[in-house]
Parts: sequence; C-alpha cells; structure tokens
Amino acid sequence: MDIISPPDILKRPLIVPHKILMGAGPANISPRVIHSMTNSILGHMNSEIFQIMDEIKAGIKYIFQTKNELSLAISASGHSGMEAILSNLLEPGDVVLIATNGIWGFRAADMAKRYDTKPIQMMADYGDNFSLNQIENNLKKYSPKLLFIVQGETSTGVYQPIEGIGDLCHKYNCLLAVDTVASVAGVPFLMDKWGVDAAYAGVQKAIGAPPGLTIISFSPNAQKVIFERKTPSKVYFWDMKILGQQWNCYNNVRPYHHTTCSTLLCSLRESLAIITEEGLENWHKKHDECYRRLRDGIEKLGLHFFVKDENKRLKTVTSVEVTDFDWKELITYAMNKYNVEIAGGLGPTAGKILRIGVMGYNANPNTVDYVLKVLKESLEHARRRSSKL
Amino acid sequence: MDIISPPDILKRPLIVPHKILMGAGPANISPRVIHSMTNSILGHMNSEIFQIMDEIKAGIKYIFQTKNELSLAISASGHSGMEAILSNLLEPGDVVLIATNGIWGFRAADMAKRYDTKPIQMMADYGDNFSLNQIENNLKKYSPKLLFIVQGETSTGVYQPIEGIGDLCHKYNCLLAVDTVASVAGVPFLMDKWGVDAAYAGVQKAIGAPPGLTIISFSPNAQKVIFERKTPSKVYFWDMKILGQQWNCYNNVRPYHHTTCSTLLCSLRESLAIITEEGLENWHKKHDECYRRLRDGIEKLGLHFFVKDENKRLKTVTSVEVTDFDWKELITYAMNKYNVEIAGGLGPTAGKILRIGVMGYNANPNTVDYVLKVLKESLEHARRRSSKL
Repeated sequence: MDIISPPDILKRPLIVPHKILMGAGPANISPRVIHSMTNSILGHMNSEIFQIMDEIKAGIKYIFQTKNELSLAISASGHSGMEAILSNLLEPGDVVLIATNGIWGFRAADMAKRYDTKPIQMMADYGDNFSLNQIENNLKKYSPKLLFIVQGETSTGVYQPIEGIGDLCHKYNCLLAVDTVASVAGVPFLMDKWGVDAAYAGVQKAIGAPPGLTIISFSPNAQKVIFERKTPSKVYFWDMKILGQQWNCYNNVRPYHHTTCSTLLCSLRESLAIITEEGLENWHKKHDECYRRLRDGIEKLGLHFFVKDENKRLKTVTSVEVTDFDWKELITYAMNKYNVEIAGGLGPTAGKILRIGVMGYNANPNTVDYVLKVLKESLEHARRRSSKL
Repeated sequence: MDIISPPDILKRPLIVPHKILMGAGPANISPRVIHSMTNSILGHMNSEIFQIMDEIKAGIKYIFQTKNELSLAISASGHSGMEAILSNLLEPGDVVLIATNGIWGFRAADMAKRYDTKPIQMMADYGDNFSLNQIENNLKKYSPKLLFIVQGETSTGVYQPIEGIGDLCHKYNCLLAVDTVASVAGVPFLMDKWGVDAAYAGVQKAIGAPPGLTIISFSPNAQKVIFERKTPSKVYFWDMKILGQQWNCYNNVRPYHHTTCSTLLCSLRESLAIITEEGLENWHKKHDECYRRLRDGIEKLGLHFFVKDENKRLKTVTSVEVTDFDWKELITYAMNKYNVEIAGGLGPTAGKILRIGVMGYNANPNTVDYVLKVLKESLEHARRRSSKL
C-alpha cells in the first residue's frame, strides 16, 4: 500500500514544442546530434565508451587549440567548470583575482569564498572589458595565485581579448583561467599560444551539443599545481586527480570515478565531429558572418547596442539596450507567437537589455533572418503596448 | 591557421553497439525513454521545462514515498547526491557517522573529509549489514549530527533494512541520510514512514532512465538544518538553498541557478511516468520476481552467493562468489560473444565476486533467462580456461 499515490500530473502525455532558441544558450542542436542520442546506453567501463571519450578528448584539444593532456568533459552543466577550476587550483587562503564585469565574476567570487580562498574582484563597467594595463596593476598589487577572466560575458555581451594576458600572468607567477562558455568555437580561442592555464566551456552554445556536459582543459603547469596540493580539493566530483584517470589523461589505467552518461557523450562526440569536418576556422567564420548579418538587421530596426565599441562586442551573444519598449512584452510575444526565444538581461543587466544569441546549429543566415523578422514584429508590438501605458 | 589540426579520430563514424547491460548499472532503457530524448531542446527558463520539472518532482515524491517539498533532480550523476547531502547538512567540525560495508561508505568518508567535517566509520563485514543495536551503540558513543547509510550496497550486493533507523537517529538528535542509488524503485523505500531525512538515487538503475541526473529529497527537519547553517555550503552546484529555488521548492520565483539539460529531464520524466502508469508496487513486484528467477538459475549453475543470508541480499544486484573460474574470462566472453555486460567486483570485492543487476527496463523474465543462458556458457568457457592454466 503506497502512502503517496501515483501522481496524476505524470499521466498526461509529454508535450515538448519545437522552439528556436536565440537567447544566450542553450541553442538548438542538429538532427545528427539528436539522432546520436538514440543509441543504446553504454556502460561507463565499456571499451566503446572509452573510445568515444578518447575521440571527445581529441575534439576538446582541437576546439581549445591545445596539446594539454589533462583535457576532458565533466558530467555536469557549465558551472561545474568554474567550480572545477577554482577547487582544483586553489587551496584555503590562496588569493584569486577575479575579473568582474558581469554576473560570472560575481558567481566565481561566491564559489571561491566557499572554498575558503581569498577572492579579490577587479571591476570594470558592465559593457566594458579589461585592459592589459589594468590587469598588470592588479597582478602587481595583489600577487594572486590565479586570475579568473571571462572571454565572453553573456550577461552583458562583452568580449574580452585574451592575447597578452597569459604572458602578464606568468610574469607575476600567476595562473590564468578563462571562462569560454559562450565564446569557444564561436570565436578563436588559442589556449596554448595565449598561455592559458585552465579553460572550460558549456557545450550547449557554439559547440552545438545539448547541455549537461562541460569541457575543461589544464596546462602542464596547472596540472603540476593540482598534483602538488597540500590539501585535497574540496569536491570529489570535480577532483581532476581522479577524474583525469577515468579520462586516461595520465597514461594510466582507467579506474571508476563516476557513472558517465553515454547518451550525452555521444551527442558531444557528434557535435565535435561536425566542427572537425567543417573545420574550426570555417565554424568561426560562420559565426562571424551571422553576427554581422544580425548587427546590420538590428541597426535597421533603430535599436542600440549595449556594447558601444564594436571591438568589445561578443559575436555569439549580442546585447541590445531596452529603450522605448517593454522588454517583457517583446520576449513574450516572440515566444508565444513564434516559439522564438530572445533573452532578457541577467544579473546586473536584468531589465536593461535584450540578448540575442546566434550559436552552433542556429548560426546560419536563414535563422538570423527569421529571428530579425520576429524581432521586428515583436518590437512593434512592444512599442505599441508601451505607448498605451 | 589552426595550430592543432582537425583530429582524424573524429572523422570516423560513431559506432555504438547494442548491449544488454546486466551489471550494477546503468541498465538499458525503454524505447519510449529513448524516444523522449529526440525532442527539441528547451531553454532552462522556458515554461515547458518548469512544467516537466514539476512533473518530475511529483514523480520523485512518489518514488521516495514522501511529501517533502525539497525534492528535485541534480544535473549530475549519482555521486552528486552523496556530495549534496554531506555538503548541505554538514559544516566544518561536524561529526558524521558513516556506515561502511562496501565502497560507498569509504567514498562518503572521503567526501566528508574534504568538507572539513569529522567522519567516523562504523564498519561491518563486506557481505553483511548493520543491526539496530550496532547503530544505536554508535549513535550513543559518537553523538553524530548525521548518519549516512546505504540501502543497496552494489559493491557487495547487500541490502540494508532502513525501518527503525530513523526513530533511533531522532532519539539521539541525529539526521538520517540514505543512499538508495541502486535500490529505490527496485525495492520499497518509505522515506516519510521510516523517518529518513535525506535520500538520493541515480536514475540509471531501477528507475529506467539514462545516467546523468540524480534525484534527491530532504525532510522538513533537514531543510531547517540547511537554512540555519552558519557557513555557506562548500559547493555552489549542490547548494540546495539556491537549487531548490530553481525547482520551485520554496513557493517562490524560479531564479536561474544553472542550465538544466531538457533532454535528460525529458528522459527522467518519461521513466517516472512509466513507473506511475505501472504502479510502484507492481514495479517492485517485477523486480522481486526477476530476482527469484535469477537466484534459482544461479543456484542451478552451482554458483555460490556472496551474501549468505537471503534476507540481507539486495534484489536489484546479485553478487556471486568467484570460485573455480577466471572471472575476467567470464565477463569478457559474455561481452565479446553476446554483448552482455556482467560486472566484476568493485573496491573491496574486486576479483572476488561477479555482480548481476536486473533493473528497470531489464527487469523482465526474458532478459533474466537470456542472461542466465549467457552466464552458463560463459562460465563453462571460464572453467575450461581455468582448468587449462
């Protein structure tokens, strides 16, 4: 006799409408990637899953442009990469400099505090990025063990050039960690050339996979720091010493760390294979062309970019100022009438901007034209509503 | 110009053979669950995903037989439940009593140490479980804040009765946390009736979903402990104060915590819907019948159970002693010739036992008969090989 009866809510059929996801991610995924998830489940110790993991590892190295052996996918969504970097590279009392010009810097500082490290937030205006000069002054002043910086700040639509920061960090004996969640595969990221010690990315944006996995990579220097820790890293699930073994990063056996999801690994493997086949440079070019097409369309609509300096604009997620229209009306109209997702602001930009993402499978001219059409009609609707209030 | 060229390894086609997964999990999943993963991706803030999350929450309460409002799914594999319970309920310096009769107790102690708590391991023989008497003596002696115990020890195949432990814990002002990863839905688990304060489970076993998500539930008392913490919980990703909001557990708005994976949420929703439609009692009954069928077949083969006392045997994962045969030969033969996964031991039982799991979609007489046929032939092969050595 069950105490809790079978819930009626689970007796209705599952209904999932098709949407065009043009917010800050996740983006839509290709039929090939969807199809890959209909494969049978593999056990986490089967030889076939190890083969797929090896293929993913090769794809991660390609995407990040790195030779790092410690490159793998964590079985959790994007934030796990942020936690994995901070918990593996820092010990209690360590100073970490966190570049903060949007929500992700605040979140990294929150996480770093939980690990009893000493986060110092280096601030820039929302909509702006960091100069090498500002970074050097802060490295000099605080002598941090790690600098955490975001290449693509989705909450503001700001792009951060990474070139040059690695050299600066290493001059001051500091490691460089870069959040590439919404940027990698959409714009160039040269991990080895730029001297980046740790990088991670969600796979549901420019990479073109469903959410649920995070790719991450550590330089040999960062790996050394991990292996020379005096205290264990705080989180078992993100512990690169053990997880790296399951991913065969240390030329070793592959002991069980956790049960991987073969379904998601297949989907990531296929999305990386698609980029490999098209070529990373072509993939970047496609995203660049789509950005320009979207930009031109947005300008025609008389909208204003939140990031004024085009060199500081993130090409995968474009932010637009909320001016003479009700932003909630706009995104609700686009969703209800066209099943098109356009995002509002997030954290410090909530209520102030719209965010339009063109990433992965959605990075094609037809989809950009369609979202511009929907944006135009939704904007007219939202302006009418605002003028009536 | 790419520095790292496109990897050839990603240019070969993805090949995933169909296997019958009769190890300790993951198990195979039904075509209906597989099909649910071909749905379009939903954004993590879309109303439809919130509806699916509400349905999952109802399913979790049903599976755990609880009214707990703080019931949700974590976007990571089973171990995340262990970490979430320990990191949310314990603060540095707290004493946690960890029932250890297999690998999971050791793992929980490892995790607890990372959070600077004081784990005390209460030991039992591998193959045995814990009596109420032993538990009470330890509660009296150590006055722990939390007792962690495993209902289904997959590394040994031991079942732990939970009834009565909740009352004992509460008598000594201690919270009770139960790992039901390989047991829930396969055998009864009455969270509220048995006074369990925290429980979690992987979804890739008796529940019938692919791996990648973990269901978890906290009693009102446990929730109070979480909200009255003096220090923040160590891990942002498992922080129930914030994650519980995204899952609408506090009658609140649903702020963004992390990007959920709609694909996996659909699959979990469908697997819970299937159990709801069949009825939890019938689902248990099916697993019980399959266990008996497997047990009888194993006895006929002249094999010996690792857990002698049948009352202490976990019905979802049956452990068999390795005697006059080479266990590696056996499982390799079954895999290579029949694509059937039978597992070896794990942790303290490595090399000593075989583990045969009959769970979720695989819990049907035909599959049991098939694995018995494969086991018989593989055993004969392994015995021949052993006699030749």
